[in-house]
Amino acid sequence: MIKVALDAMGGDNAPSQVVEGAVLAANESNGRYHIVLCGPEDLVRSELARVGYTGDAISVFHAPELVAMDESPTAVLKTKQNSGLVVSVGLQKKGMVQASVSAGNSGAMMAACLMILGRFGSIARPAIALNMPNHKGPCVMLDMGANVDEKPAMLVDFAHCGSVYAEAMYGIKNPRVGLLNMGEEAKKGPEVIQEVYKLLQASGLNFIGNVEGHDALAGKADVIVTGGYTGNVVLKLIEGFYELHTELFGEIDTPAGREFTKQWDYRNHGGGLLLGLNGTGIIAHGRSDALAIKNAVLVAYKLADNKVSSKIAERLGASK
Amino acid sequence: MIKVALDAMGGDNAPSQVVEGAVLAANESNGRYHIVLCGPEDLVRSELARVGYTGDAISVFHAPELVAMDESPTAVLKTKQNSGLVVSVGLQKKGMVQASVSAGNSGAMMAACLMILGRFGSIARPAIALNMPNHKGPCVMLDMGANVDEKPAMLVDFAHCGSVYAEAMYGIKNPRVGLLNMGEEAKKGPEVIQEVYKLLQASGLNFIGNVEGHDALAGKADVIVTGGYTGNVVLKLIEGFYELHTELFGEIDTPAGREFTKQWDYRNHGGGLLLGLNGTGIIAHGRSDALAIKNAVLVAYKLADNKVSSKIAERLGASK
Repeated sequence: MIKVALDAMGGDNAPSQVVEGAVLAANESNGRYHIVLCGPEDLVRSELARVGYTGDAISVFHAPELVAMDESPTAVLKTKQNSGLVVSVGLQKKGMVQASVSAGNSGAMMAACLMILGRFGSIARPAIALNMPNHKGPCVMLDMGANVDEKPAMLVDFAHCGSVYAEAMYGIKNPRVGLLNMGEEAKKGPEVIQEVYKLLQASGLNFIGNVEGHDALAGKADVIVTGGYTGNVVLKLIEGFYELHTELFGEIDTPAGREFTKQWDYRNHGGGLLLGLNGTGIIAHGRSDALAIKNAVLVAYKLADNKVSSKIAERLGASK
Repeated sequence: MIKVALDAMGGDNAPSQVVEGAVLAANESNGRYHIVLCGPEDLVRSELARVGYTGDAISVFHAPELVAMDESPTAVLKTKQNSGLVVSVGLQKKGMVQASVSAGNSGAMMAACLMILGRFGSIARPAIALNMPNHKGPCVMLDMGANVDEKPAMLVDFAHCGSVYAEAMYGIKNPRVGLLNMGEEAKKGPEVIQEVYKLLQASGLNFIGNVEGHDALAGKADVIVTGGYTGNVVLKLIEGFYELHTELFGEIDTPAGREFTKQWDYRNHGGGLLLGLNGTGIIAHGRSDALAIKNAVLVAYKLADNKVSSKIAERLGASK
């Protein structure tokens, strides 16, 4: 059975929404996974009592220290080793769980995963992958903000990560990989991106060439690669668009409206997936509510169950 | 009176929609501007006859050559000097018009404006500015794809261009300038962007710091600066959002729905504004219909009437 460690104190709505999310996920487990809530034991247990959870799909691991959202990642790793965030990753390193989820300080979660679990190949830091709103079929984009000023080879590694992910999680054989660019021609875009284009052509991946901003929403590629700066702008723009849409129109109660909410509400996507780690890490949204936490746990379980991390390791080992 | 040259043969729907758009604009002129349609004279006149235009706010300038959408800009400048596209810019250089608009080959329009009109200061090429969907007040973003691999000083020039534009066009005193980035802190983002941050702090502009993707839609800044690669991704993503929305929901006939269409339909924004030119150039969308052309002409008129180009020249001269 897969065990997922969950930082009980991470995020704006912790611990109440995190614990409620854990319970929602636990109720759908059917013996497939177990959740280890990492946080101050008494507090977490009282939250579990509050929501009346008495099942056996959740256990509690005492982690009394608290991490602030704006604390420096280095400081967290040094001084908060008994926080839910660091403990949730540490348990994975010890083999006691197979995945770690936090909605807390995202820089600290990234640093904890990187320093404690380690990374593969030439990947300087794992990439953050995001399931894009996908009305035409699954589409994963990366990097959404873990890295900056990437060397061309790094983006090729990201393409491999995304490709393995799309195949393992969605059963897409030989996923179509697109390079985010400002035009379709090979000679478009920054020098780094033009270099990535050439490397992708020689990568053995199913590289379909450049894709543009609108293609990210139109099902043209299964995997879309870009650098962390632009990816992060895309991520935040997608959130901003959904927020604006909700502000203007509320939830539209038609089949199309329900599908729109399902695709665009970040709570349904399980957060940022760290690919390229020697393990499984999820950075859930800082504003996560119970639904978002539940889905982050489900995605963490599926990543671990599908052995995405070790498949990426094999691929990156093989592609060198 | 302002004269605006319009490439009658530019875009997917030329000449019929271009001529119809010119007539729509002409009907709103009230003596403020005159439109010079540049294209094969007989063809343009027969289109004008078809729509029954007999007013005096439109004249025709014979430009028999045609430019294909995928022709190389260099080839167009060399071999298509009598095309509507090149002629519309050439008339401006000769002082016969004060602004030029084309929905045709955008690379060729950029090149024609750059080579024929020239540029200011350290701007290697003009920036493409876009009026963002703006539910909270006007917001202009640049560069949306004219440049790549910009040096930090270029983005500062773009910030000045955007700031002059926002003040001249919208009457915003001391416009708030934001730098598009992947976090709020000064130390976030690519090296170039961090360098731009420092330069903007010392620029005399009303620099409010970094803004993120969602801020671009939320009225946090009046001017948002980024490089051409990321800007172009944002531009296409915004188009993709609106297309998807229309596909899912059609036009929503409520006050919020009408405001949404007004803000998000690119046809209402007048196209890409070339800022940093020694003159006024507009790249309208290749798919422009009559409404889009009308608005492109109106924006061209306003840019010329407000002397945005010479105000930018003064600013960039003064800021050196």
